Amino acid sequence: MKTLVLKFGGSSVATIACIENVADIVASAAAEARIAVVLSAMGNETDRLLALAHEITEQPSKRELDQLLATGEQVSTALLAIALHKRGFNAQSLTADQIPMHTNAVHGKARIEKIDGEKIKQILDNNEIAVITGFQGITHEGRKTTLGRGGSDTSAVAIASAIAADECQIYTDVQGVYTTDPRLVPEARLMQQITFEEMLEMASLGAKVLQIRAVEFAGRYKVPLRVRSTFVPEHPGTLITLEDKKVEYPTVAGIAFSRDEAKLTLQGIPDEPGIAAEILGTISSANIEVDMIVQNAGVDGKTDFTFTVHRNDYKQALEILNAKSAELGAAQVLGLPKIAKISLVGVGMRSHAGIASTMFATLGRENINILMVTTSEIKISVGVEEKYLELGVRALHADFALDQPPEEEKMLETA
Amino acid sequence: MKTLVLKFGGSSVATIACIENVADIVASAAAEARIAVVLSAMGNETDRLLALAHEITEQPSKRELDQLLATGEQVSTALLAIALHKRGFNAQSLTADQIPMHTNAVHGKARIEKIDGEKIKQILDNNEIAVITGFQGITHEGRKTTLGRGGSDTSAVAIASAIAADECQIYTDVQGVYTTDPRLVPEARLMQQITFEEMLEMASLGAKVLQIRAVEFAGRYKVPLRVRSTFVPEHPGTLITLEDKKVEYPTVAGIAFSRDEAKLTLQGIPDEPGIAAEILGTISSANIEVDMIVQNAGVDGKTDFTFTVHRNDYKQALEILNAKSAELGAAQVLGLPKIAKISLVGVGMRSHAGIASTMFATLGRENINILMVTTSEIKISVGVEEKYLELGVRALHADFALDQPPEEEKMLETA
Repeated sequence: MKTLVLKFGGSSVATIACIENVADIVASAAAEARIAVVLSAMGNETDRLLALAHEITEQPSKRELDQLLATGEQVSTALLAIALHKRGFNAQSLTADQIPMHTNAVHGKARIEKIDGEKIKQILDNNEIAVITGFQGITHEGRKTTLGRGGSDTSAVAIASAIAADECQIYTDVQGVYTTDPRLVPEARLMQQITFEEMLEMASLGAKVLQIRAVEFAGRYKVPLRVRSTFVPEHPGTLITLEDKKVEYPTVAGIAFSRDEAKLTLQGIPDEPGIAAEILGTISSANIEVDMIVQNAGVDGKTDFTFTVHRNDYKQALEILNAKSAELGAAQVLGLPKIAKISLVGVGMRSHAGIASTMFATLGRENINILMVTTSEIKISVGVEEKYLELGVRALHADFALDQPPEEEKMLETA
Repeated sequence: MKTLVLKFGGSSVATIACIENVADIVASAAAEARIAVVLSAMGNETDRLLALAHEITEQPSKRELDQLLATGEQVSTALLAIALHKRGFNAQSLTADQIPMHTNAVHGKARIEKIDGEKIKQILDNNEIAVITGFQGITHEGRKTTLGRGGSDTSAVAIASAIAADECQIYTDVQGVYTTDPRLVPEARLMQQITFEEMLEMASLGAKVLQIRAVEFAGRYKVPLRVRSTFVPEHPGTLITLEDKKVEYPTVAGIAFSRDEAKLTLQGIPDEPGIAAEILGTISSANIEVDMIVQNAGVDGKTDFTFTVHRNDYKQALEILNAKSAELGAAQVLGLPKIAKISLVGVGMRSHAGIASTMFATLGRENINILMVTTSEIKISVGVEEKYLELGVRALHADFALDQPPEEEKMLETA
């Protein structure tokens, strides 16, 4: 019999009616597998609790906030256990201290250190369903911690790893991972599979289906991860797998994009070691996050350095560069406050040349000027003027035929 | 420096404004003593959580209900710790598992087995305020339990005992313990002191200021207990003390009463050993609680047996007696569905004769017929027709001069 971890987010357990729906899904899964469930807090409960603390002070102690917020999942798990009893199943809810699930002591953003899988395994061996609080842990001193927003996905993956589950299924309000945002490209196709690496690139670039830490964790511990819908539970969703299972995977898996970027360029700076670190060090010490970074090969001992930041940070970053440019010996500082990023993602890109040229040809045909380009092994990102975002994504989606299932999935579908 | 345990009930922490008020009281007490605080859940939070569970099923598992309800105090304690930080105090909230506070595994009505005072003492030694969840515990297997409604008072007393506190102060919405219900007798006087035994009799008879288990516990472990008001914190309230401190205490300390009783009599039953046990056994196996019991000396081998039950149980009790009366050889079954009980309570009654005769004289003067009488060492209770309840209590309160402070308190007041 397989062992599955099923994780449901806050919107899936927002009301008693939602919890009853989740209980139906769990009950149906429990007919064929051993089940551990991981839950978030009900709907906006975490926000409600935060608001109570903020009524007292703007800066409540993080240690006490964790003690406060940890109640959210304790409520939802107890209620789901009760709903499972009603359906004739043995079930018991478990908090982090009852497992125990140890984290470090960084309150509000704790990292999981060790999960003892024995208690959960005993419960499953005893024909019970374990209903476990996500998002939280305890320190070795027994203080309650939280993993930070979205941490329940990570809890689920870590628990799946601890009990060597066959699959960790993340139920959410989307049906799975799409080739790009369906709101932008109606032809966007739901993927049956995607690799961990592709998922990481898609997630960080805006296809925010899963918490990125959870995907990293699942990849590292080789936990097969499936994204599926709480509201269309009959659909199998998207399986996130290890790369080596899919050598024949198509070159481009999907298209990610992000708006709200801004571009900054330092022109004519000395082409010397350490200069990039100095620029970025100044920016990051102002707590500004940098996304794309491009530096051209130097000519005559001078080079250009370009990077993007979130649009909200544009003005501050520009001021920092202007203040710093003389010291750095830059000829001038250039800025563009509104750019968008379009990225092709796919593990198959590693072994296939010509993706970039096809991409540039498509964009050229549509008269979209490419402002900057960065590449990684499984991703090509271009910066374009924001107004071209939708046009660019749609044209690329069509040219790379992402609306068509890849050969491998076609075989699966007819099998 | 003294060590105090301060306990606040749900109405004292119902809103953030209430929690800020409690924080002020605690802050002021912390200027002069080492403080451990014990809290209930905010206002109607326990009812809100119960209602969620009952939306799923009418009979939720008690184990899961405990897991659910235990969140209530975790929220209020974290919020109070945050409010104390705002006032510049070090404070930390603690749940039952963090102390630990062990109970047996009778979910919903758990009994405290052992509280480890070390952790709390360390916190106080470290100049911190410990803010502890009332009402809950954990089993030796780490399952969360609750002590049942009102259990926070018991938690507070048990914690005071575990850390050898000098006093356990129960803050509530009354100013202390009155000689009788002030809604009924406007002249009712707030007592400065009362003994544990008197308090037990007062509490069980309707002056429900404190949970009776908490008073028993405080008496057994000799924890001085003080009832005082959250809303008039400058008033010292009522101290519940060991008897031996007050040999000169007045004969009658207060008047308790209860409505809603009903009286049943088996007339002419054989005056044989075991017959009372048989009657009460039949009643209690129907889960009916019996209050007063009176049996007269037998005449000609026959006797009468009278007892009272809650009015809601009257019909069922009457049916049981009617069905049983032939077997018991009773001449007839008599019932009176509406009686009230008035009780004089006072440790001084032990050494003073004449209390009963004064009581009967007062009632006789007011033409109140006495339906039954029971006595204990420190209490005399009479059953009267319900319509005479208010008249009887007021007349007795006046005749025993309960509106006047006893000599001992007069001395305290001028000291």
